[in-house]
Amino acid sequence: MAGDLKQYALSVAAQARQASRQLATVSTESKNVWLRASAERIRQRTAEIQAANERDLQRAPEYGLSAAAVDRLRLTKPRLEAVAAALEEIVLLPDPIGEVIEGHVRPNGLAISRVRVPLGVVFFIYESRPNVTADAAAICVKSGNAVILRGGKEAFHSNHAIYSVLADGLRDAGLPEYAVQLVNTTDREAVGQFLALGGLIDVTIPRGGKSLIERVAREASMPVIKHFDGVCHVYVDKAADLEMATEITINAKCQRPGVCNAAETLLVHAGVAEEFLPRIAAALRERGVTLKGCERTRKLVPFAEPATEESYRTEYLDLILSVKVTPGLEEAIAHVNEYGSHHTDAIVTTDLGAARRFTAAVDSAAVMVNASTRFNDGGELGLGAEIGISTDKFHARGPCGLREMTSYKYIVQGTGQVRG
Amino acid sequence: MAGDLKQYALSVAAQARQASRQLATVSTESKNVWLRASAERIRQRTAEIQAANERDLQRAPEYGLSAAAVDRLRLTKPRLEAVAAALEEIVLLPDPIGEVIEGHVRPNGLAISRVRVPLGVVFFIYESRPNVTADAAAICVKSGNAVILRGGKEAFHSNHAIYSVLADGLRDAGLPEYAVQLVNTTDREAVGQFLALGGLIDVTIPRGGKSLIERVAREASMPVIKHFDGVCHVYVDKAADLEMATEITINAKCQRPGVCNAAETLLVHAGVAEEFLPRIAAALRERGVTLKGCERTRKLVPFAEPATEESYRTEYLDLILSVKVTPGLEEAIAHVNEYGSHHTDAIVTTDLGAARRFTAAVDSAAVMVNASTRFNDGGELGLGAEIGISTDKFHARGPCGLREMTSYKYIVQGTGQVRG
Repeated sequence: MAGDLKQYALSVAAQARQASRQLATVSTESKNVWLRASAERIRQRTAEIQAANERDLQRAPEYGLSAAAVDRLRLTKPRLEAVAAALEEIVLLPDPIGEVIEGHVRPNGLAISRVRVPLGVVFFIYESRPNVTADAAAICVKSGNAVILRGGKEAFHSNHAIYSVLADGLRDAGLPEYAVQLVNTTDREAVGQFLALGGLIDVTIPRGGKSLIERVAREASMPVIKHFDGVCHVYVDKAADLEMATEITINAKCQRPGVCNAAETLLVHAGVAEEFLPRIAAALRERGVTLKGCERTRKLVPFAEPATEESYRTEYLDLILSVKVTPGLEEAIAHVNEYGSHHTDAIVTTDLGAARRFTAAVDSAAVMVNASTRFNDGGELGLGAEIGISTDKFHARGPCGLREMTSYKYIVQGTGQVRG
Repeated sequence: MAGDLKQYALSVAAQARQASRQLATVSTESKNVWLRASAERIRQRTAEIQAANERDLQRAPEYGLSAAAVDRLRLTKPRLEAVAAALEEIVLLPDPIGEVIEGHVRPNGLAISRVRVPLGVVFFIYESRPNVTADAAAICVKSGNAVILRGGKEAFHSNHAIYSVLADGLRDAGLPEYAVQLVNTTDREAVGQFLALGGLIDVTIPRGGKSLIERVAREASMPVIKHFDGVCHVYVDKAADLEMATEITINAKCQRPGVCNAAETLLVHAGVAEEFLPRIAAALRERGVTLKGCERTRKLVPFAEPATEESYRTEYLDLILSVKVTPGLEEAIAHVNEYGSHHTDAIVTTDLGAARRFTAAVDSAAVMVNASTRFNDGGELGLGAEIGISTDKFHARGPCGLREMTSYKYIVQGTGQVRG
C-alpha cells in the first residue's frame, strides 16, 4: 500500500513536472481562455457540483464537523457564482511571467536582464472550504506553475467536482493536461510521499491548522511557504488621536476576531493610558471583549482580568484582548518584536518621528500607521488574489499572490563574449 | 559536551538576533565607516594575520591538504591587500536596506509601500579560503544582517585573525558588538547545534563540497541557500557563427575548468555537426581536453571516447567534455532541461527565433546567447560582491549579492482607515 502510494505520488509529480515545462512558455491568452471557460463551466455545472457537495454534507456528522464548519462546507448557488467570478478576476490580473524585472548593459557589451519565470510545480495542501480548489488552481496556472492539489477529506467530493470542471477545459485552451491535478486519495500517508519528492516539486504550500503546517515543515524535502500565527498589536502612542485609536482598536479586534490579522494585544503609552484605557475598555466590553491587562491597566480598568507572560504570546482568535501600558515608544517596539509573531502591527500616532521609528524598527510583514491591522490581506494591499500569507521572511513575506509564485532567471545576450 | 555546545550555540545565536534588531536600522554611513576602517586595519595588522596564517600552514600536512590547497590557504601580502580592497568595493555598492521596491495608493486612501529589510541572522558555513571570512561578513553587515561565521578547521587561525580585525571596529562605527561572530570551535557537532536554531537564525548558507551542502540541507531547521552542481551546456545551433562557437566552447570549457559555470556538455545541431565537430574537437584536443561523444560524434571524431547516459549528468570540473549531436533545437532544449543542473546554459546562434525559444524554454538560473557560460557570476552580472550562487529557484536564484540577503515588509500609511 505504501509502495502503491509512493508510485502514485511519483507519477503525479512527474506528470506535473512535465506539464510545468510547457506551462512556462504558454501564452497569457491561453491561460485566460482557460480561466474564462472554467468560470463558465462552473456556472453550467452547478447542479453537478452541488450533488457532489451534498455527499460531503451527508458525511459531515461522521467527521464531527461543527454547525459552523458544515455551513462553510456548503456550496450554495451564490457561493459557486462567487467561485466563477473569482476566476474571472484572475483573468484581469497581469501575467507575471516574462516580466523583465530589471536589466542593464555591462561594460563588455553583455546585455543582462532578469526575467520572471514560474517556480515550477506547486504542491498545495488545504483543509479549507472547497472554493479554495478553484482559487489555488487559478493562481498557480496563471503564474505558469503546475499544481498538485490535496484537499481535506471533509470536502473530498466537492473538491473533486470542482477539479473536474477545471481539468476538463485545459486541453481546449491549449494547456497541458496535467497542469492541475487533484490527489485522488485522502490517505494521510500520501502527503508524506509527495513531501519526499523534492526533485520534482518546487514548493509546498500548506494552508490549515498549526499541526498541519508543522508536519509539512518537518517532513518536506522542498521549500515550504508557511503561514503560522498572527499575534498582532495595536500600539496607541502618546501623540495618538484617541478617537481614531478607539475605532482602529475596535476594528482590529472585533470586525473578524477569528482571523490572523485581528489584533490580540493592545499597547498603550503611559502618557495617555489614564485618558484612553477606561474609554476603550468600556467600548470593548460593550462588544463582548474580555480584557487581560497588566497591573497598570487593571488599576484603570477594574474589570480587566490579570494578564500573564503567556497572554502576550497568545493568538486568541476570539473576543479576548491582552492590554499593556508601556512607558514609551521604544518599550512598545521591543514588546512587539519580542512577543509578537511578526505578522501585522499598527501604531496610532500623529507624531511623524514616532511613525517613522515604529515602521522602521518593528520587524513584521506589515506595519500599519493609523490603520487597522485587518488590512494585511492580498486584496487590500493590491495584490489581487492570494494563495496564502507567508509568515516567513524568505522568498515571500505577507500575502502571496501571482508574483510570489514566481522565480527569475538571468538572460544574457552577447555577441561572442568570452571571459579573459 | 553536547550540552555545552548547545548552550554555546544558543548564546551566540541569541546575541546575533539581538544585534540584527539594531542592524536593521543603522545608517548606511555606520556600515561604510566600519567597512573602510576594517580595510585599513587589515592593512595595518597584516603581520598579525600572517602569523596566524602561518600556524594553519604548519598544520596543513596533518589535514592532508594538497599543494594546491596549501597555496589557496596562504595569505600573502598581495592577497591581504585584495581582502582590504574587496571591503572598500562593498562600500561603493548601494545599501539595499530601506529601498522602496514599489508603492501605490489604494482607493480607500491607504498608501502601501513594499520596503526592503534585512533577512536577520545569517549562519554562514564555509570550507574555502580565509579571505571569505571578510567577504561574507562585509556582505552580511552591509545588507543589515548579523552573521555567524563558521570556517573550516584548516583555516581556523587565519579566519580567527581576520575576524578579530573586523570585530574590533564594530563598536567604534556604532554597530552592535555581535553583528559579526565566529564560531570558536571546529567541532562538527557545533554545526548541528546551530542548524537546530530555526527560531533565532533566519537562513543558513553553506559554501563548500556537496556533502557539506547535503548535510546542511538535511539538518537545517531554517531555510538554506544551496549551491549544488553546475552541469552547464553550450548548444551550437544550425545557424551558429562557427568561429564564435569555437571560441565560446573553448572558453566555457578551458578557461577555468574547475568551477561551477564551466561547460560540461557540448550539444551540436546535426546540420552543422559535420563542419563543426572535427574542428572544435581538434582545438579542444590541442588544449588537453578529453571528449566523450555520442555515436554520431564518434563517427566524426574518431578519437572521442564513448559517452554514457551518466556522462551527460556529470560535473567533471576537469578537462573533460561530453559531446552530443541533436537533431534540432527542441531536442537540445529537452536535453538541457533533463540532464543539466539548471545552472548556466548557452546557445550560439544568429537565428533570432532560436535564441528566443532557447532563452524562454531552458529552465536555468542563467541562459546565455552568444556568450560563454563563464559569465554567470555576481561580478560579471553586475551584482557586485556575491556570498554564493544559489541553484534553488526559491528566494534567490543564481549569484547572491547584497539584495539577495534581504526580505521586505509592507508599510501601510493611513488616516484612520478601518475595514468594513
